[in-house]
Amino acid sequence: MPDRTVAASHRPTPVHTHPDDVSVLTALSAVADPVRIQLLRELSGSPVWTRSCGSFDVPVGKAALSHHFSVLRAAGLVEQRDEGPKRVNRLRREEFDARFPGLLDLVLRDDGEG
Amino acid sequence: MPDRTVAASHRPTPVHTHPDDVSVLTALSAVADPVRIQLLRELSGSPVWTRSCGSFDVPVGKAALSHHFSVLRAAGLVEQRDEGPKRVNRLRREEFDARFPGLLDLVLRDDGEG
Repeated sequence: MPDRTVAASHRPTPVHTHPDDVSVLTALSAVADPVRIQLLRELSGSPVWTRSCGSFDVPVGKAALSHHFSVLRAAGLVEQRDEGPKRVNRLRREEFDARFPGLLDLVLRDDGEG
Repeated sequence: MPDRTVAASHRPTPVHTHPDDVSVLTALSAVADPVRIQLLRELSGSPVWTRSCGSFDVPVGKAALSHHFSVLRAAGLVEQRDEGPKRVNRLRREEFDARFPGLLDLVLRDDGEG
Protein backbone atom coordinates (compact mmCIF):
# COMPACT_ATOMS: atom_id res chain seq x y z
CA MET A 1 0.00 0.00 0.00
CA PRO A 2 1.32 3.44 -0.81
CA ASP A 3 1.91 5.67 2.15
CA ARG A 4 -0.97 8.07 2.70
CA THR A 5 -1.02 10.91 5.16
CA VAL A 6 -4.12 11.47 7.24
CA ALA A 7 -4.66 14.82 5.58
CA ALA A 8 -4.77 13.35 2.06
CA SER A 9 -8.01 13.78 0.14
CA HIS A 10 -9.92 10.85 -1.23
CA ARG A 11 -9.00 11.70 -4.79
CA PRO A 12 -7.59 8.77 -6.71
CA THR A 13 -3.84 8.85 -7.23
CA PRO A 14 -3.12 10.55 -10.57
CA VAL A 15 -2.34 8.26 -13.50
CA HIS A 16 0.86 9.03 -15.41
CA THR A 17 2.20 8.18 -18.84
CA HIS A 18 5.90 8.15 -19.58
CA PRO A 19 6.89 10.29 -22.59
CA ASP A 20 8.34 7.18 -24.25
CA ASP A 21 4.79 5.83 -24.51
CA VAL A 22 3.35 9.02 -25.98
CA SER A 23 2.64 9.47 -29.71
CA VAL A 24 3.68 12.55 -31.66
CA LEU A 25 0.04 13.49 -32.17
CA THR A 26 -0.74 13.21 -28.45
CA ALA A 27 2.26 15.36 -27.58
CA LEU A 28 1.40 18.01 -30.18
CA SER A 29 -2.26 18.09 -29.15
CA ALA A 30 -1.28 18.53 -25.51
CA VAL A 31 0.82 21.60 -26.18
CA ALA A 32 -1.49 23.17 -28.78
CA ASP A 33 -3.62 24.90 -26.17
CA PRO A 34 -3.18 28.37 -24.65
CA VAL A 35 -4.08 27.33 -21.09
CA ARG A 36 -1.72 24.36 -21.12
CA ILE A 37 1.05 26.49 -22.63
CA GLN A 38 0.60 28.90 -19.72
CA LEU A 39 0.67 26.05 -17.18
CA LEU A 40 3.88 24.69 -18.71
CA ARG A 41 5.54 28.10 -18.78
CA GLU A 42 4.73 28.83 -15.14
CA LEU A 43 5.82 25.35 -14.14
CA SER A 44 9.13 25.70 -15.97
CA GLY A 45 9.86 28.86 -14.02
CA SER A 46 9.40 27.26 -10.60
CA PRO A 47 11.46 24.73 -8.62
CA VAL A 48 10.14 21.16 -8.95
CA TRP A 49 7.35 20.06 -6.60
CA THR A 50 6.70 23.62 -5.43
CA ARG A 51 3.59 24.40 -7.48
CA SER A 52 0.19 23.16 -6.41
CA CYS A 53 -2.56 22.89 -9.02
CA GLY A 54 -4.39 25.87 -7.58
CA SER A 55 -1.38 28.18 -7.80
CA PHE A 56 -1.48 28.85 -11.55
CA ASP A 57 -2.70 32.06 -13.07
CA VAL A 58 -5.08 30.66 -15.69
CA PRO A 59 -8.63 31.79 -16.44
CA VAL A 60 -10.40 28.45 -16.06
CA GLY A 61 -12.52 26.75 -13.43
CA LYS A 62 -11.54 23.82 -11.24
CA ALA A 63 -13.02 21.10 -13.47
CA ALA A 64 -11.39 22.50 -16.61
CA LEU A 65 -8.07 22.86 -14.81
CA SER A 66 -8.28 19.24 -13.69
CA HIS A 67 -8.86 18.22 -17.32
CA HIS A 68 -5.85 20.24 -18.51
CA PHE A 69 -3.60 18.56 -15.96
CA SER A 70 -4.96 15.19 -17.01
CA VAL A 71 -3.99 15.95 -20.63
CA LEU A 72 -0.52 17.06 -19.52
CA ARG A 73 -0.01 13.85 -17.52
CA ALA A 74 -1.20 11.71 -20.44
CA ALA A 75 1.30 13.42 -22.73
CA GLY A 76 4.18 12.73 -20.36
CA LEU A 77 4.64 16.42 -19.65
CA VAL A 78 3.76 16.66 -16.00
CA GLU A 79 4.17 14.45 -12.96
CA GLN A 80 1.94 14.99 -9.93
CA ARG A 81 1.89 13.79 -6.36
CA ASP A 82 -0.31 14.51 -3.40
CA GLU A 83 1.24 16.20 -0.40
CA GLY A 84 -1.42 16.30 2.24
CA PRO A 85 -4.27 18.38 0.85
CA LYS A 86 -2.20 19.68 -2.03
CA ARG A 87 -1.41 18.12 -5.37
CA VAL A 88 1.99 19.35 -6.47
CA ASN A 89 3.59 19.26 -9.90
CA ARG A 90 6.83 18.59 -11.69
CA LEU A 91 7.61 19.34 -15.34
CA ARG A 92 9.08 16.15 -16.85
CA ARG A 93 11.57 18.17 -18.78
CA GLU A 94 14.44 15.75 -19.32
CA GLU A 95 12.41 12.72 -20.24
CA PHE A 96 10.06 14.70 -22.50
CA ASP A 97 13.02 16.37 -24.22
CA ALA A 98 14.60 12.98 -24.82
CA ARG A 99 11.46 11.75 -26.60
CA PHE A 100 10.49 14.99 -28.41
CA PRO A 101 13.65 17.09 -28.84
CA GLY A 102 12.99 20.79 -29.13
CA LEU A 103 9.24 20.72 -28.65
CA LEU A 104 9.19 21.93 -25.07
CA ASP A 105 11.76 24.62 -25.87
CA LEU A 106 9.42 25.88 -28.56
CA VAL A 107 6.44 25.89 -26.19
CA LEU A 108 8.35 27.65 -23.44
CA ARG A 109 9.80 30.23 -25.79
CA ASP A 110 8.01 33.48 -25.15
CA ASP A 111 7.81 35.13 -28.51
CA GLY A 112 5.30 37.68 -27.33
CA GLU A 113 2.47 36.15 -29.28
CA GLY A 114 1.51 33.15 -27.19
CA MET B 1 -3.22 41.89 -62.95
CA PRO B 2 -1.80 38.46 -62.26
CA ASP B 3 -1.50 36.21 -65.24
CA ARG B 4 -4.42 33.79 -65.46
CA THR B 5 -4.71 30.95 -67.87
CA VAL B 6 -8.01 30.32 -69.57
CA ALA B 7 -8.33 27.00 -67.80
CA ALA B 8 -8.06 28.54 -64.33
CA SER B 9 -11.07 28.16 -62.10
CA HIS B 10 -12.82 31.12 -60.55
CA ARG B 11 -11.51 30.27 -57.11
CA PRO B 12 -9.90 33.19 -55.35
CA THR B 13 -6.11 33.11 -55.19
CA PRO B 14 -5.08 31.42 -51.93
CA VAL B 15 -4.00 33.69 -49.09
CA HIS B 16 -0.64 32.90 -47.50
CA THR B 17 1.02 33.74 -44.21
CA HIS B 18 4.79 33.76 -43.85
CA PRO B 19 6.06 31.60 -40.94
CA ASP B 20 7.70 34.70 -39.44
CA ASP B 21 4.20 36.06 -38.84
CA VAL B 22 2.88 32.89 -37.22
CA SER B 23 2.54 32.44 -33.44
CA VAL B 24 3.75 29.35 -31.59
CA LEU B 25 0.16 28.45 -30.73
CA THR B 26 -0.98 28.72 -34.35
CA ALA B 27 1.91 26.55 -35.52
CA LEU B 28 1.30 23.91 -32.85
CA SER B 29 -2.46 23.87 -33.51
CA ALA B 30 -1.85 23.42 -37.23
CA VAL B 31 0.29 20.33 -36.76
CA ALA B 32 -1.75 18.78 -33.95
CA ASP B 33 -4.14 17.06 -36.34
CA PRO B 34 -3.88 13.59 -37.89
CA VAL B 35 -5.12 14.62 -41.35
CA ARG B 36 -2.75 17.58 -41.55
CA ILE B 37 0.13 15.44 -40.32
CA GLN B 38 -0.62 13.02 -43.16
CA LEU B 39 -0.77 15.88 -45.71
CA LEU B 40 2.58 17.22 -44.50
CA ARG B 41 4.21 13.79 -44.59
CA GLU B 42 3.04 13.07 -48.13
CA LEU B 43 4.06 16.54 -49.24
CA SER B 44 7.52 16.16 -47.74
CA GLY B 45 8.04 13.00 -49.76
CA SER B 46 7.25 14.60 -53.13
CA PRO B 47 9.13 17.12 -55.29
CA VAL B 48 7.88 20.68 -54.84
CA TRP B 49 4.88 21.80 -56.90
CA THR B 50 4.08 18.26 -57.99
CA ARG B 51 1.20 17.50 -55.63
CA SER B 52 -2.29 18.76 -56.38
CA CYS B 53 -4.77 19.05 -53.51
CA GLY B 54 -6.76 16.08 -54.77
CA SER B 55 -3.76 13.75 -54.83
CA PHE B 56 -3.49 13.10 -51.10
CA ASP B 57 -4.59 9.89 -49.46
CA VAL B 58 -6.67 11.30 -46.62
CA PRO B 59 -10.16 10.19 -45.52
CA VAL B 60 -11.93 13.56 -45.73
CA GLY B 61 -14.28 15.27 -48.15
CA LYS B 62 -13.49 18.20 -50.40
CA ALA B 63 -14.72 20.93 -48.05
CA ALA B 64 -12.82 19.51 -45.08
CA LEU B 65 -9.70 19.13 -47.19
CA SER B 66 -9.97 22.74 -48.29
CA HIS B 67 -10.20 23.78 -44.64
CA HIS B 68 -7.12 21.73 -43.73
CA PHE B 69 -5.09 23.40 -46.50
CA SER B 70 -6.31 26.78 -45.32
CA VAL B 71 -5.00 26.01 -41.82
CA LEU B 72 -1.67 24.88 -43.25
CA ARG B 73 -1.33 28.08 -45.30
CA ALA B 74 -2.22 30.23 -42.28
CA ALA B 75 0.48 28.50 -40.25
CA GLY B 76 3.12 29.17 -42.88
CA LEU B 77 3.48 25.47 -43.64
CA VAL B 78 2.24 25.26 -47.20
CA GLU B 79 2.38 27.45 -50.27
CA GLN B 80 -0.15 26.93 -53.06
CA ARG B 81 -0.55 28.12 -56.59
CA ASP B 82 -3.01 27.43 -59.34
CA GLU B 83 -1.78 25.72 -62.49
CA GLY B 84 -4.71 25.63 -64.87
CA PRO B 85 -7.41 23.57 -63.18
CA LYS B 86 -5.08 22.26 -60.51
CA ARG B 87 -3.96 23.81 -57.25
CA VAL B 88 -0.47 22.57 -56.49
CA ASN B 89 1.46 22.63 -53.25
CA ARG B 90 4.86 23.28 -51.79
CA LEU B 91 6.00 22.53 -48.24
CA ARG B 92 7.64 25.71 -46.87
CA ARG B 93 10.29 23.68 -45.19
CA GLU B 94 13.21 26.08 -44.94
CA GLU B 95 11.29 29.15 -43.82
CA PHE B 96 9.17 27.16 -41.35
CA ASP B 97 12.29 25.46 -39.93
CA ALA B 98 13.93 28.85 -39.48
CA ARG B 99 11.00 30.09 -37.41
CA PHE B 100 10.19 26.86 -35.51
CA PRO B 101 13.35 24.75 -35.39
CA GLY B 102 12.72 21.04 -35.04
CA LEU B 103 8.92 21.15 -35.14
CA LEU B 104 8.50 19.94 -38.70
CA ASP B 105 11.13 17.23 -38.15
CA LEU B 106 9.04 15.99 -35.24
CA VAL B 107 5.85 15.99 -37.31
CA LEU B 108 7.48 14.21 -40.24
CA ARG B 109 9.12 11.62 -38.03
CA ASP B 110 7.26 8.41 -38.49
CA ASP B 111 7.38 6.73 -35.12
CA GLY B 112 4.75 4.22 -36.07
CA GLU B 113 2.13 5.80 -33.87
CA GLY B 114 1.01 8.83 -35.82
